[in-house]
Amino acid sequence: MEFSSQYIQQAVEQLSSLPTIGKKTALKLALHLLDAPSEDVELFTKSLLEMRANVKSCSQCFNLSDAEICQVCSDTLRDQSRICVVETVRDVMAIESTGQYRGLYHVLGGVISPLDGIGPAELTIQELFSRVQQSEVKELIMAVSPTIEGDSTIFYINRMMNDSDVLVSAIARGVSFGNELQYADAMTLGRSIATRTPYDRTI
Amino acid sequence: MEFSSQYIQQAVEQLSSLPTIGKKTALKLALHLLDAPSEDVELFTKSLLEMRANVKSCSQCFNLSDAEICQVCSDTLRDQSRICVVETVRDVMAIESTGQYRGLYHVLGGVISPLDGIGPAELTIQELFSRVQQSEVKELIMAVSPTIEGDSTIFYINRMMNDSDVLVSAIARGVSFGNELQYADAMTLGRSIATRTPYDRTI
Repeated sequence: MEFSSQYIQQAVEQLSSLPTIGKKTALKLALHLLDAPSEDVELFTKSLLEMRANVKSCSQCFNLSDAEICQVCSDTLRDQSRICVVETVRDVMAIESTGQYRGLYHVLGGVISPLDGIGPAELTIQELFSRVQQSEVKELIMAVSPTIEGDSTIFYINRMMNDSDVLVSAIARGVSFGNELQYADAMTLGRSIATRTPYDRTI
Repeated sequence: MEFSSQYIQQAVEQLSSLPTIGKKTALKLALHLLDAPSEDVELFTKSLLEMRANVKSCSQCFNLSDAEICQVCSDTLRDQSRICVVETVRDVMAIESTGQYRGLYHVLGGVISPLDGIGPAELTIQELFSRVQQSEVKELIMAVSPTIEGDSTIFYINRMMNDSDVLVSAIARGVSFGNELQYADAMTLGRSIATRTPYDRTI
């Protein structure tokens, strides 16, 4: 596409460098920003710069945070004896949005994947270990991807905790709500039968 | 969605105020920018601010331009006797990308639409008229939407040019390339038969 303005050209190039934004969408966004009041564009760019400058990694759980210690870690009302171990900050957001978990988190930064050159040292596993030793954690809830790499990570962390009395658990795998049985894959269905739970008569 | 950082919250709000960007995409973009080097984010925001500050409307054709007069208008190699009249700057880009047109443009800023309160005074029709009177334009090529409002606009401009010897033409309406006849709407198909062209034996 040819543009009558090099400034538009530059802006479109920058916008289309973002994920999921193609050239056409980038042009639409650029023209939208051109039409918007100058102050709005300044507010827009300011919010991005401020975010980039101020958001850090929580020194305890590696979740995104405005302060040295994140909101979750510094919330004394949360259950300090449970740590939910996840791969990314997006997983923390997903679990927080369920409203079902009141413990702490630990963001690994990925899973162990030798083929991609990611070993335990590339993740925050050592930091997790120190955290467990220094506090009164009773349970590590592993909430990682249901892949071979995820399972290896659970296996590795479980073995590290062998000498301690920390319980390592993993979130349940099974047929999703709203999914029909016949469409569930064999692996999920098989595992959901193997890990069946007693029917709760109180509900 | 709840965020562990108010800066991320603000950035996501700003990003999702853009067209076609929802909350989930905004979060993806924000996390991408968080991971990107600081200089990249500065370059990104700088390009948007520069665009907003420097891009103007060409004083002659109302196309977007870096200078007082746009690249097209100041290009003396282009055919100065033809003006292609379009609704928006996006139409100029679309026609330029065909590489088939070497004349000038005039961006109306819309079409006449009494129901939306848009009369000739809200558009750049008067400026088009002055332009035609002050230069040696021989043809106005109307390239507006094939709607009642578009047709009214062509009708209005054609009537204004009645006393001059400027030819007013409209781009051809017809069945698109690659479209099957049976799926063309009746209006388009009917019009394409009424305005049929002699078969060019030289091709």
